[in-house]
Order: sequence, then C-alpha cells, then structure tokens
Amino acid sequence: MRVRRGRQDPIPHLQPRRGAPAHQDVRPGLTGVPMSEISKRTFLATGLAAGAATLPLGVMAAEPGRKLGYAILGLGYYATQIIMPRFAECEHSRLVALVSGTPEKLKTFGEQYGIPESHRYSYETFDRIVDNPDVDIVYVITPNSLHRTFTERAAKAGKHVMCEKPMATSAADCQAMIAACKKAGRKLMIGYRSRFQAHNIEAIKLVREGALGPVRTVVTDHGFTIGDPKQWRLNKALSGGGSLMDIGIYSLNAARYLTGEEPVAVNAMESTDRSDIRFKEVEDIINFQLLFPSGATANCVSAYSANCNRYRVTGPKGWVEIDPATSYRGQSMRVQLGGPPAPREPAPQPKNQFSAQLDHLSECILTNQEPIVGGEEGLKDLRLIEAIYRAAREGRTIRL
Amino acid sequence: MRVRRGRQDPIPHLQPRRGAPAHQDVRPGLTGVPMSEISKRTFLATGLAAGAATLPLGVMAAEPGRKLGYAILGLGYYATQIIMPRFAECEHSRLVALVSGTPEKLKTFGEQYGIPESHRYSYETFDRIVDNPDVDIVYVITPNSLHRTFTERAAKAGKHVMCEKPMATSAADCQAMIAACKKAGRKLMIGYRSRFQAHNIEAIKLVREGALGPVRTVVTDHGFTIGDPKQWRLNKALSGGGSLMDIGIYSLNAARYLTGEEPVAVNAMESTDRSDIRFKEVEDIINFQLLFPSGATANCVSAYSANCNRYRVTGPKGWVEIDPATSYRGQSMRVQLGGPPAPREPAPQPKNQFSAQLDHLSECILTNQEPIVGGEEGLKDLRLIEAIYRAAREGRTIRL
Repeated sequence: MRVRRGRQDPIPHLQPRRGAPAHQDVRPGLTGVPMSEISKRTFLATGLAAGAATLPLGVMAAEPGRKLGYAILGLGYYATQIIMPRFAECEHSRLVALVSGTPEKLKTFGEQYGIPESHRYSYETFDRIVDNPDVDIVYVITPNSLHRTFTERAAKAGKHVMCEKPMATSAADCQAMIAACKKAGRKLMIGYRSRFQAHNIEAIKLVREGALGPVRTVVTDHGFTIGDPKQWRLNKALSGGGSLMDIGIYSLNAARYLTGEEPVAVNAMESTDRSDIRFKEVEDIINFQLLFPSGATANCVSAYSANCNRYRVTGPKGWVEIDPATSYRGQSMRVQLGGPPAPREPAPQPKNQFSAQLDHLSECILTNQEPIVGGEEGLKDLRLIEAIYRAAREGRTIRL
Repeated sequence: MRVRRGRQDPIPHLQPRRGAPAHQDVRPGLTGVPMSEISKRTFLATGLAAGAATLPLGVMAAEPGRKLGYAILGLGYYATQIIMPRFAECEHSRLVALVSGTPEKLKTFGEQYGIPESHRYSYETFDRIVDNPDVDIVYVITPNSLHRTFTERAAKAGKHVMCEKPMATSAADCQAMIAACKKAGRKLMIGYRSRFQAHNIEAIKLVREGALGPVRTVVTDHGFTIGDPKQWRLNKALSGGGSLMDIGIYSLNAARYLTGEEPVAVNAMESTDRSDIRFKEVEDIINFQLLFPSGATANCVSAYSANCNRYRVTGPKGWVEIDPATSYRGQSMRVQLGGPPAPREPAPQPKNQFSAQLDHLSECILTNQEPIVGGEEGLKDLRLIEAIYRAAREGRTIRL
C-alpha cells in the first residue's frame, strides 16, 4: 500500500510523484517570478473574472505545460458530453480517472478517454483513490444532495475538489464541505463556469469600470421547460429543490457577480402547479428580488416551465445585456451607452469557459492561490437560496 | 345663453349642433348595421386590443367622417408635442378647444391650431365650457393630482372625459371620478395608448391565441433617468408618487393586458437615495412582482434612474418581446417559437397609437360602447399601485 499523503502538506502536488511525467515533478516557480512575467492569460482568467479592482494582484502563473490530474465523479450528460471533451484544450489539467455507479459507463468512457481500469472507480471503491497519485482533483458532478458526501470523501482521500453548483442542498452542508477541505488542506472550487466566459467577463469589466454609472437594476431570467418527470432534478431528496437549485441559481449568482455586492434583502414569489406530475416535490417558478447595499436592485426569474437565459444590467449611463448569457455556447452581447443599442464582441479569452474553469483550479493549486469561486462563494448562494425559499414561504421580505 | 345639454341624454352628440358641418348632424347608424359591415379597422382597434376572446363583439362602426370635438386641458409637452399634432390623422376626432393656466400657451397653440379665442379657457373660466357645443370631450393632461378635479368639472359641464394615466393619485379618487362621469351620463377613458399600438396589439394577440402556451412569466422594465429636480413629477403633492405613478405603471398595465388577468398577490422592493435632491419626496426605484390566478407571474421594474422600456412574455412554447415596448415610436418586436429568436413585423394598424386612442373614445361615444380602457381600468391600476407601495413599505406580500 502506498503511503498516504500527509494532510499537513499544503501543496502536495509539489512533491515528486511516482509515474508522473518528469515535467510534473518540477516545482513551479512560486517565488521569484517577476510581476512582468505574470501572463495576461492568467490575469484575465482570474483577476478580471472576479473584478480586478477587488482581487489581490498576486496571482502567479503556473508553469506552462504542468498538468494536474482530474477524476470525474458522476458520468451523466454534463460530465461526459460537456466537461470531459474540454480537457483537450486544457493547459494545466488532464483527465486521469473516472468514478461512476454504472459499470457500463466506466467501460465506455474509460475506453473512449484511455483511462485504464486501475483508474476507474465505483462509488464503493472510490475511497481507494487515496492511493492514486495521478489524481490531484476530484470533480463532483452528481445530483445535488450527494455533493457533500463525495466532497468530504475526496478531501479525506487527500484530493482537491471541484464541485458543481449548487454546492449543496443547504448552507449547513456547504459549511461542512468547507471545513472538510480545510481540515484536509485541500482546495475547494465550485463550478461557476460563467465566471470564465468571455461575455460575462466583459460585462463584469464594463460594470466595474463604471461605464454604466452606479448599477441600478439587474434583470436576469433563467429557466427551461423541464421534461421527464422521473429525472433526479424533480426528486427533492436528490435535488434539494426545484428550478432555483438548478437554473435560478444562475440568476442569483449573476446578480452577485455583476454588482460585486452581497444582497441585504430578499423577496420571492413562487408559482407551482402541484397537480403537474413534474412538480409534486419541487417548485416550478420562484422569482425573486434582491436589494444591494449600494441601492442596486435585481429582479430575477427562476423557472422550470419557461425557456430564458439572459441578463441586463442598467445604470444611469446605459446598459449591458447578454442573451443567452450563461449557456454552454452562443452568448450574444449588446451594449447601450448614449447611442442606440449595439452588438459588442467581448475581448477574446484564450480558453473556453469549461477549459478555463478546469485550469483555474489547477493553476490555483500549482500557485497556491484561492479560486475566485471557492467554497465560500457556493455557501453565499446557498444562504441566499434558503432566504429566497423562506421569503416565498413566509410572504415577507427577508433582511440579511 | 345656450341651452345646456340634459344630463339624461346618453348620446348628446346625436343631436344636431349649431355650426357643426352637416354630415356631423346625421345620426350614425347605431342599429341596423349588418355585422358584415363592421369595419376590420374598428374591430382591430377595439376587439383585438382588448383581447378579442374577452370582448363583446357588438362594437359598431361609427359613421365615416363624423368627428367629435376635443378640448385639451393642460398644455405641457405631451399635450402640445405628442397629442395635438395627431388629430390630423383622426377620423372621428378634431381639436376644438384649449384649456391652460398660461395665457401665452393659449395664444401660441390657439393660433397654431386655429382655435378661436372663444374656445380658449383658463382653469378659472373652464367651467364655461358647458356652453360650448363644439366640445364633446375634455382630455385631461395635467399633473396627476389634478386629474380628479378636472374630470369632475368636465363631467359636470356635460363633457365626456379622456384622462391621462395614472388616472389619479389614489383609488378613492378614481372611484369619485367614475361616479362623477356616471352621474353626468358621460364616458370616461384613460389614456392607455399602448392598447392601440400595433406591436402591443400583436403581442396580446399572440398570447391570447396560445402561441406561447400558458403564460408563465412577464418580465417588463420601465424607467428613465429623470432630470430637473424642480419638475412636478418629483413633487409628491402634484404627482402622488415617483417612478411607479409615472413610468412603472406601464410595467403594471402591460403585465395585466398581456396576461389578461388580475393579480392576486403583490411583492415590492424600493430603492431610493433620499440624499439625491430629486428624490426628497418620491421614490426612485420600486420593483414589483405579481402573481396571477392562472399561475402566470410578472417581474416588473419601475425606475427614475435607469432607462428601460420593454417586456417579454414567456410560456412553455416560446416568447414574444417588444423593446422598446411602450415608447412614442420605434417599437421593435422579436418572437421565439421553436427556432431561434426572429424579428416580427406586426399586422399594420390603420392609425398610429395616438390617433387610434383619440378616435376610440369618439367611436365609443358615437356608437354608445364602453372604452376598452375606461375608468375601471384606471382604478384597477391605482388599487394595485397602492398595494405595491404597501408591500414595499410593510415588507410583505399583499394578497388581493
């Protein structure tokens, strides 16, 4: 049996690892890198995505070519069709292991991606991943209510964690996950991919630069018409809730990253047809309003019976709009500043949102930085989600 | 002195009038008109604007060329620059009198529109309009808090009334105005011009025909960046309130005419910087949420510090959007039904929204029909406006 990595080692990947390519054994230049050498790419992917003005500038570039190994846990559509193909464009990330409860999926995707049987795990054998030094990061892409346990198990196995949104089904679970990763000395990042998407980065930049003047309104709608009533998203034990947990969270997260503020008050209004077989357990529509400390406001749609994916941020000087805004592809932006509304092409980003997201965590590990969307970011959303549910249930404004 | 028209005469214009062109003295064919002769124009301007399915079909065509006389009361920008030039395109309406507190305005616009001095009134001499048989209708375009008194005085003078929105500054005032017109046997219509605008008529038609499936969300934003802090809109005694009374009412009214339903619950959230000299007395932003009996929802923006004028109605099958939606001109529509969003040109209307609005009241008088936006429509909005203010003030959902 291999020696388990010490939990006290804050940067385990810096130790030489058996079987890793030689270049992975070189300690990346954490110190002594002149600021002038910080790559524009890294800065854009991290600093601007979070709002440059509010981020420390000490983000260091990871050594080119250094790749950390990801295990994908949960082989559903998003994992297999959206995320896994994107490792091909990654600079610091590679797919090295798979975890699934379905042996056929392990075989199919294992063969497709050249993952040896030794690196394929069931949920029962998953904890043995502790002994696999090729795996640096476990990316948890399961139904929501399983995020906590797999994050805890991954951290216990000495792995860093990427966890899909929503981070968990309760704020309490988020706190437990943060604590587990902290205790294990491992990093935790939430899969808020839009923070790495060019149009969204541009919108944040415009707002932060004051192009619109102080933000007055964010109007953002996220929803889709959900189908199969038997899917896990409509099973409250697995999803933790309906549209808000799944798609409305994009409206919520966007309102926060666009304003760069945390709400102080929340209103909400639910509309669910409980006679609809899809909505026996979870909500359909739950629209909500946010008030921010600056006086900025947000009107947000969250729906399982309407297709929408957009936002517009408006200030006294104009507005910026993306529609679709947080989709997998096809983002389209318009800006109105003085003249008539006009299309705007954002500054190009070196990577697509998926590869940039995967690499961001790798780079954070390689350079010992905190992800711009760490566990605290997921926790903030879950606290607000709980407040939104409460506001709708109690029919009153919840002050935060 | 002329004989005052009897209040019991429900259709005073049907009596021959001195000095009126001969064709105006002919009683229009109120009965005996075959349904097949109902003009498509009249049907579109009335039936479809209100949602054909919910309107009685007994709307009769007014005799072509028959024109009723309007007095414009209040010679501000909207009256003189937007409304008055539009009589030129009217079929059943003509400008015959002016009422203003400013002698220079009476002179300037009187000369411009060929209104003799005998047909120019100050607010002091206004009540003498009872003796002017050329005036059938008084169009009240004053600051909001004066709507009630001038409507009451016009009705008392035996005139029909067109009143700008908001109908008044309280639901109680609206009720008094309705009662005054009813007592005088005169018609009362509120200036909801968008109901006569081609894109809005098309959107209502699409929704009513079920093109989107059942409406799930209406997202509508109305606001502008207000300037001069000394204007009456920012004086609560004159305006009755801030953005909601003035521009947010478009969001409210649109949510109602698009769904064709009346809300059963209201949420609201206000954001006003009271240190801003413009907002000493009235609110800036007051966003609100509506819940309709069918389960349709609305997220609405009302703002005095952001420019926006749009709505999107979404159902399971797609959406229809107008942006700008309720502006004086320039409406632009997109529809998403199955495929990608596509621009849509609405069915052309024979008149612009202003002329159609003016003629609608004339036609209703000529054919003894009720306007599709009568006093009850204005009252419904004011009741909701009061509920919205209350929801924001008390921080709770108001059930209606």
